[in-house]
Amino acid sequence: MPAIRTARERAREELTREIKQEARRQLAASGAQQLSLRAVARELGMASSALYRYFASRDELLTALIIDAYTELGDAADQALAATEDGTPRERWRAVWHAARDWARANPHEYGLVFGTPIPGYAAPQATIEPAGRLPLALLGIVREAPLRATPTAPAPPGDLPGQLTALAAAMAPGLPPLALARAVSAWVQLIGLIGVELHGHLVGGFEPADDLFAWTAEQTAEAIGL
Amino acid sequence: MPAIRTARERAREELTREIKQEARRQLAASGAQQLSLRAVARELGMASSALYRYFASRDELLTALIIDAYTELGDAADQALAATEDGTPRERWRAVWHAARDWARANPHEYGLVFGTPIPGYAAPQATIEPAGRLPLALLGIVREAPLRATPTAPAPPGDLPGQLTALAAAMAPGLPPLALARAVSAWVQLIGLIGVELHGHLVGGFEPADDLFAWTAEQTAEAIGL
Repeated sequence: MPAIRTARERAREELTREIKQEARRQLAASGAQQLSLRAVARELGMASSALYRYFASRDELLTALIIDAYTELGDAADQALAATEDGTPRERWRAVWHAARDWARANPHEYGLVFGTPIPGYAAPQATIEPAGRLPLALLGIVREAPLRATPTAPAPPGDLPGQLTALAAAMAPGLPPLALARAVSAWVQLIGLIGVELHGHLVGGFEPADDLFAWTAEQTAEAIGL
Repeated sequence: MPAIRTARERAREELTREIKQEARRQLAASGAQQLSLRAVARELGMASSALYRYFASRDELLTALIIDAYTELGDAADQALAATEDGTPRERWRAVWHAARDWARANPHEYGLVFGTPIPGYAAPQATIEPAGRLPLALLGIVREAPLRATPTAPAPPGDLPGQLTALAAAMAPGLPPLALARAVSAWVQLIGLIGVELHGHLVGGFEPADDLFAWTAEQTAEAIGL
């Protein structure tokens, strides 16, 4: 039976989109902490009580924006993978790195919402976990499918780390050796860290533009993993 | 001529400290965007007009908090260096990494203030640049003084990067070869990125606690630099 969308459903989707759009505008203008359902309703000319039928609380609206941000970032990564389907692992790695940076630079407030300072009083619910995993999974997919070259010796993972890596490999990247996973996680931290320091102004005066530092870091991490 | 502090000066210092303390409390409770001179004055039982004689605007108070945060982080790094004066470069590197993480975990809101999401409408002034450089300089000092081992080949810096590295080396680490500086910058990004993803909850479920991942990353970056 085909899913037939009623006029009411379409109207609801349309209004949900408009609410999130206005919320993103406020996010950019005054930050996530200031986001207020009342202000969103006012801007849209809605009664607050009507808005509450779409998002029951500020936190619910924030969660929707966070899921959208991770989803857009994940889509950007997946599009980069699709566009380089016939490329080498190194080319695909590079493409995903640049896609992530490009999306973050085009959407700095949304990037800040998911990777920046936590919002006081807000705790991200379970529903954000799967979309949050999409960028790491895109990177791990490349690493898993590539024939990894031998890499320079890395220090042996100490303490609990081997166990954590084995459990994470089983969950996210079956078959990937723990040390390769550790390097891939390291590269992901490097990607998030580098986008963060660039967006937050920490490279101004040293690496401006940061394009070549970014390109070099993408190569360096690929090299370290053995891609 | 010794600098004799008058009772008035001492009172001013004391009150400045109390204002910043209350501002840090508000930072933790409701975030940097919500920081309000009016609310700080109210909590301290001061007239707003009196508070304005200490900090002329919210931005001036923010700047003071940012400088304090960088200074505390820089002090923590320097203390780690002092405590390992007779240690190997690797031991000193490790000590600075752990000092930075320990300070950030003890002061997550202050860490977020300097490395997290930018505050809408606020631009950090020139006065924050020198304190911001202290952690990178502590790390670079170790790298400069250490006899660096040969490291695995890294990709050649592309485009503008060699020029940027040469200029930055001249300013911050005279004598350090550009590629070693690139690796040191990379390690600093890794440090900031790793503390960020840990503090912001991105390692929950995978690396919990993240102690061993952190320790391993410190070794891995030292290894890559040739320390």
